[in-house]
Amino acid sequence: MRDVLIAGIGSTVFGRHAGTPIEQLGVKAAEQALLDSDIERERIGALYLGNFISGPLNGKEVLAGIVADQLGLPNIPCTKVEGACASGGIAFRHAWLAVASGQCDAALVVGVETMTHARTAETTAALNCAMDNESDGPSGLTFPGLFGLAWRIHAQRYGTTRSQVSAVVRKNKSNGLRNPLAQMGADLSDEQIASSAAICDPLQLYDCCPTSDGAAAVVLVAGALRGEVRGVPVEVLASVQTRGAARIAGHPDLCSFDATVAAAQRAYAMAGISAADVDVVELHDCFSIAEIVDSEDLGLVPRGEGAIWAAEGRTAVDGEIAINPSGGLLAKGHPVGATGVGQLYEIVRQLRGDHPNQVANARIGMTHNLGGTGVACTVSLLRRGD
Amino acid sequence: MRDVLIAGIGSTVFGRHAGTPIEQLGVKAAEQALLDSDIERERIGALYLGNFISGPLNGKEVLAGIVADQLGLPNIPCTKVEGACASGGIAFRHAWLAVASGQCDAALVVGVETMTHARTAETTAALNCAMDNESDGPSGLTFPGLFGLAWRIHAQRYGTTRSQVSAVVRKNKSNGLRNPLAQMGADLSDEQIASSAAICDPLQLYDCCPTSDGAAAVVLVAGALRGEVRGVPVEVLASVQTRGAARIAGHPDLCSFDATVAAAQRAYAMAGISAADVDVVELHDCFSIAEIVDSEDLGLVPRGEGAIWAAEGRTAVDGEIAINPSGGLLAKGHPVGATGVGQLYEIVRQLRGDHPNQVANARIGMTHNLGGTGVACTVSLLRRGD
Repeated sequence: MRDVLIAGIGSTVFGRHAGTPIEQLGVKAAEQALLDSDIERERIGALYLGNFISGPLNGKEVLAGIVADQLGLPNIPCTKVEGACASGGIAFRHAWLAVASGQCDAALVVGVETMTHARTAETTAALNCAMDNESDGPSGLTFPGLFGLAWRIHAQRYGTTRSQVSAVVRKNKSNGLRNPLAQMGADLSDEQIASSAAICDPLQLYDCCPTSDGAAAVVLVAGALRGEVRGVPVEVLASVQTRGAARIAGHPDLCSFDATVAAAQRAYAMAGISAADVDVVELHDCFSIAEIVDSEDLGLVPRGEGAIWAAEGRTAVDGEIAINPSGGLLAKGHPVGATGVGQLYEIVRQLRGDHPNQVANARIGMTHNLGGTGVACTVSLLRRGD
Repeated sequence: MRDVLIAGIGSTVFGRHAGTPIEQLGVKAAEQALLDSDIERERIGALYLGNFISGPLNGKEVLAGIVADQLGLPNIPCTKVEGACASGGIAFRHAWLAVASGQCDAALVVGVETMTHARTAETTAALNCAMDNESDGPSGLTFPGLFGLAWRIHAQRYGTTRSQVSAVVRKNKSNGLRNPLAQMGADLSDEQIASSAAICDPLQLYDCCPTSDGAAAVVLVAGALRGEVRGVPVEVLASVQTRGAARIAGHPDLCSFDATVAAAQRAYAMAGISAADVDVVELHDCFSIAEIVDSEDLGLVPRGEGAIWAAEGRTAVDGEIAINPSGGLLAKGHPVGATGVGQLYEIVRQLRGDHPNQVANARIGMTHNLGGTGVACTVSLLRRGD
């Protein structure tokens, strides 16, 4: 496998883009990434597009081809990949594989989703496409239900409190205020969080990510093109994709996701580093409790201490390990197919040193994107390349 | 890139599978392919699943993970790919890439779709997800409309007649009678075809493929495992994926698809062969006129003579180039995400010499899978490996 660099990034604001067709959002992010990279579009050799539910919510598929057409890309393979909420991370991994394996010298990744135009019932039904509905549908469990169970187990096993979990919410919402791309930054008190509407006990309103529209894009190039990369090059040290159980009953433990644990271990091995080397991570906090579980599964925080570390400020921008300085899904938003690519956008800006909520001296960054009931996961490791 | 062999194939009957969940159809085909290959499932290193519209029609996504879970595959990357009607061919190409580039020594491809349970209006709306609906939706043009235009141009330019086009229908429907997997084989007269219901002038009922459920699967292994392949090994000489215009107005000629022409040229170059070396092809005859255009685009038949060759019997099972001995989409059926993988199933059986509608001495076979308005295309070339 060849060395691969990230040469360009682009992103729309995450939030409401009512009236903008989904493909136009994708094109906008891609145009930014191409401009940022200084790589001519004629040199792009593959396009991977991550999207989850444009079929049910927009009546639109073949988005990879449609976006390529509007961008004026050459006659290259254009592929939509889908793995529920991990669709963006999977798109990135495939573009990385295309360059690393020598299929092409430059590849474009786009992640995109539009959701805010749909009624809540439609959105909930579409999101539940990520469940194994034959097995788990009859239980009536939705994703808030699944993560509510995870919270209950975490609380029972480790004594995790509402206040500790609220520390994650406060951190991410506060980080979101510093990120101009974020949908819902806020300065929240413990009382505001604890008195917000019940969603699925014990999850309350501020424990849940919003419904979002948005797109992000990344241009990858072969290491041999380093001289052509404008500004600080960012190296891809590892990009790993795993799977976990689809059925909820197939998980030996609802307080840990096998797919995350395996992806992190393989990524560290591929990169030749350990969790302690990671300076900054964007991880999949679809719910507050998810950040806690994820940070433990990734080995960034000792098992059972995810909430404690957040409460002690050790996961803040100036903490031992900066978790979700973008605001994460909780505050930046979660346009599903775009999320994983948006995480890469954020980490690249951190490693370039030009993030609006900068982690000091960030040299190694990580992204973690989790799909469905942990059925699909990607972890990528990036390094500042100068 | 390493040599890759097809070690196993499986397929359900194409037709109606009312009441069978989509993932179970995929599992059934995959179980067959694994059994046929003699490769233990613990050795499968990647799964690619082709599907187009399970989201809109079934409310089910992450099918790659769900199928892997039910198969008991290890913790490997499982990816759904989508490119409208070319989804199956795209899945095959990615599994081939995974093995050819050394990511793993064995990979599984599944293509699956269920459509017959939906109402006609729902199916039509879902199929139109393959259009660029912002540009072409307002015209009201559906896929029969697009191929009706292609026919009109072919007729005007080359003098193609109803009777010549009917020769394609008669051949494929007749071939379908010899294929136990086919949904709608038939022995039709010219009168029966010419008097069938008008669908979209000049297309009539028998010019259109049926709505189908079905699944097909293929196991690929590295060439180094040739000694473990049971029976006749089949070599993958080339697998190419291209794109064409998404908007109908973006096509310089509606009587030819750029994506097909480019895919064929690249595949011949990759394999080091020419069109004249191909003994048997399964190509994308979603409509009768599509077979005529495709056979010309693939260079198998001189430009403008696709219908004449069919009428003269030169594309029959015992003709100069055997086209769609399976019955093609017209008679075998078109469960969209399964179609491209089903084509590979058919060609492998031809090259093994055990097809129920066998082409004598078939040594080199081709598959051609076309998506949307020609926005995505795959062409693969296979060779009998003994």
